[in-house]
Amino acid sequence: MQHVDQILHADWVIPIEPSGVTLSDHCVAILGDRIVDVLPSARVSQNFTTDHEIALKDHALIPGLINCHAHAAMTLFRGLADDIPLEPWLRDHIWPAEARCVDRNFVHDGSLLAASEMLRSGTTCFNDMYFFPDEAAAAAIEAGIRAVVGMIVIGFPSAWAANVDEYLHNGQRVHDRYRTHPIIHTAFAPHAPYTVDDDTLRRIATLAEELDVPIQMHVHETQREVDQANAEDGRRPLARLAELGLLSHRLIAVHMTALNNDEIAELARAGVSVVHCPESNLKLASGFCPVAQLLEAGVNVALGTDGAASNNDLDMLSEMRTAALLAKGVANDPAAAPASQVLRMATYCGAKALGMEADLGSLEAGKLADIVAVDLGGIGAAPLYDPISQLVYSGHRDQISNVWVAGRRVVAERKLTNVDIASLKQTTDHWRDRIKN
Amino acid sequence: MQHVDQILHADWVIPIEPSGVTLSDHCVAILGDRIVDVLPSARVSQNFTTDHEIALKDHALIPGLINCHAHAAMTLFRGLADDIPLEPWLRDHIWPAEARCVDRNFVHDGSLLAASEMLRSGTTCFNDMYFFPDEAAAAAIEAGIRAVVGMIVIGFPSAWAANVDEYLHNGQRVHDRYRTHPIIHTAFAPHAPYTVDDDTLRRIATLAEELDVPIQMHVHETQREVDQANAEDGRRPLARLAELGLLSHRLIAVHMTALNNDEIAELARAGVSVVHCPESNLKLASGFCPVAQLLEAGVNVALGTDGAASNNDLDMLSEMRTAALLAKGVANDPAAAPASQVLRMATYCGAKALGMEADLGSLEAGKLADIVAVDLGGIGAAPLYDPISQLVYSGHRDQISNVWVAGRRVVAERKLTNVDIASLKQTTDHWRDRIKN
Repeated sequence: MQHVDQILHADWVIPIEPSGVTLSDHCVAILGDRIVDVLPSARVSQNFTTDHEIALKDHALIPGLINCHAHAAMTLFRGLADDIPLEPWLRDHIWPAEARCVDRNFVHDGSLLAASEMLRSGTTCFNDMYFFPDEAAAAAIEAGIRAVVGMIVIGFPSAWAANVDEYLHNGQRVHDRYRTHPIIHTAFAPHAPYTVDDDTLRRIATLAEELDVPIQMHVHETQREVDQANAEDGRRPLARLAELGLLSHRLIAVHMTALNNDEIAELARAGVSVVHCPESNLKLASGFCPVAQLLEAGVNVALGTDGAASNNDLDMLSEMRTAALLAKGVANDPAAAPASQVLRMATYCGAKALGMEADLGSLEAGKLADIVAVDLGGIGAAPLYDPISQLVYSGHRDQISNVWVAGRRVVAERKLTNVDIASLKQTTDHWRDRIKN
Repeated sequence: MQHVDQILHADWVIPIEPSGVTLSDHCVAILGDRIVDVLPSARVSQNFTTDHEIALKDHALIPGLINCHAHAAMTLFRGLADDIPLEPWLRDHIWPAEARCVDRNFVHDGSLLAASEMLRSGTTCFNDMYFFPDEAAAAAIEAGIRAVVGMIVIGFPSAWAANVDEYLHNGQRVHDRYRTHPIIHTAFAPHAPYTVDDDTLRRIATLAEELDVPIQMHVHETQREVDQANAEDGRRPLARLAELGLLSHRLIAVHMTALNNDEIAELARAGVSVVHCPESNLKLASGFCPVAQLLEAGVNVALGTDGAASNNDLDMLSEMRTAALLAKGVANDPAAAPASQVLRMATYCGAKALGMEADLGSLEAGKLADIVAVDLGGIGAAPLYDPISQLVYSGHRDQISNVWVAGRRVVAERKLTNVDIASLKQTTDHWRDRIKN
């Protein structure tokens, strides 16, 4: 008989591992920040005692969703400039706004807005790439969401760093600061092959080994990127990254819309993870990631929202749905990317991309208690034949009722426990007025 | 000075006509089931008196969304059989379930479930195609949603009709019954070119003229449909429909994923409306409707969810977003299908497809008061640069706070005023148990 901190009972527990399974009338026993056991509710009293028991009727418990590619602070640019081709969008809107506004406060406030939106839609961990990652970390800690903050490196100066050496130095300071933090993790985040030079990429590959962290990078985002690289140095970006020693299980290659069969095979062989951002890819007309082919080749495919400036929300339920639908359209196969596989992409595969699959991505004894309760009792999920199907094909953020990160309840009955929404709204309004002008 | 029944004030009124306009601090004055005026709130006291004034802070008012293609009753099959190719999906799952379960009660209960979901997500009118259209009408009246119920015709027997003559006869009885009804309208709904013969299609063309109603039909849903028709009678289905006299402003051609340039030009010339169902097309891998090309050619393009068995929700906000995103990806142009155009597709263009643009689809004096209030005050819509952009790219059903159909409030503070959700849920559970077995 073991005493635990809390026991969550639900009509359905979807553990993700093993894949495709839905356990009826099960519960999750939690001690500290870890899951102790997942077992039938009927058997719990034989094994555990607790002072905190929550019964979630009509609910499914799932591992927290992992948003594997975000620029959280850019949520302050949500809807600033839509329906504009990529180059004028960056040149005339996003970059000038960034030059004018991005500082420590911007990143803190934008990241807090993003963290709040993500928690309320069932995301418990996001993999971020932006300036001032220490501020993103501070906002994540404030909201109570897990974050992998990117040690960003880009070949032009910003308010965060003047040059590549400073980017690397500042990034490593952030890494050192949060090395043992329970919910803040780090990754290298070189922006893209075309904005970071060979020497820097080699240094990042070495440093990533030393620090034992992943490397997140935009790669093959558009056919144009690939064609330009090919024209300039006779190689496709992936070939260059391979020569620089970056193609490994550490690489989180984001977007990947332009891939040939040899490259897909090479990604599988090298253990590279791909992050698919279907809504951003559509909105910016970046091309179609060959998700069904990647999955068939055995590549680990995770999901991300990208920044809210090109999405325009940070809702992983909606992203799962778009991913599941789009994969079918692109593969011309209605059986491609079935619901259970897509739910796995948004959980376990995200954890694996981040190198955290031993701790995250499924509801199993020993894993961190990052857990989301989804209310399937409403008419939008009715009739309920299959909870996984309903979650992926008709799941909406209004069904997310409770969220725990590392055993701590950060959304309770649809309300954030750590963030004051009214004050957040006010801060956001202030930024809107400043950004607009 | 005129006395009106109610005046709705909002921070923003998006009238749709003229296109792309957002009016700040305006109001809508309503008398009976019609809009009397749309004017600045500051000027209302000079023109109108009323006993019912509603102030919708942080809200936008838009015309009710028009779902131009639904099989409402099939909501009872939501999630019954996902991730299955079209033919086994129909043959092994949907058709057997229909054969076993579809009767008057099924259609009533399924349509009530659909109507409830649609109202709560901002849809005020749906264009339906299913058996027992009189039951769909009864459910729509019960919920208070406007419906165009289809006089379905299909070349095989069902519980609703034994043969084509009976389909036509039963359909016209429904038409007669609701001819003067304020919120029930009718359209012919021949299922598809491959399930209705020439003679019947000719009769429908004539009858549609006589009754002055539109004709809704699945057309060119897949390349396979076009190829099979071509192989069997040497013509593409659209060419056959043209010869039968069906290509006119009366035709609401649903799906249209397989089109050549000549056909697009012909649709524009003939005034045919196309209903784009992006989520269903993706889920069933039916192909990609060339939306940007159709819009450029001047074709009237409306939006529909299709049935919940292939979507899996009836949420027009989500459908708008998918349409806006997908059009960009398919056209390889991030400026394709901009937000204001997509919002127009879901409102005015839907009304036009139904031949009801004089009464519906925009907030203008003289039009029917089918109005939706969208709460843009939450953090999911923040920061708010452009209400139309936020609505299309980050709009969620949880933002729909109030809905009026023909001046009658059918959703009040996010609750349906005419439907008991608990009892609806119970009915739905009963159907699930019956359908599953």
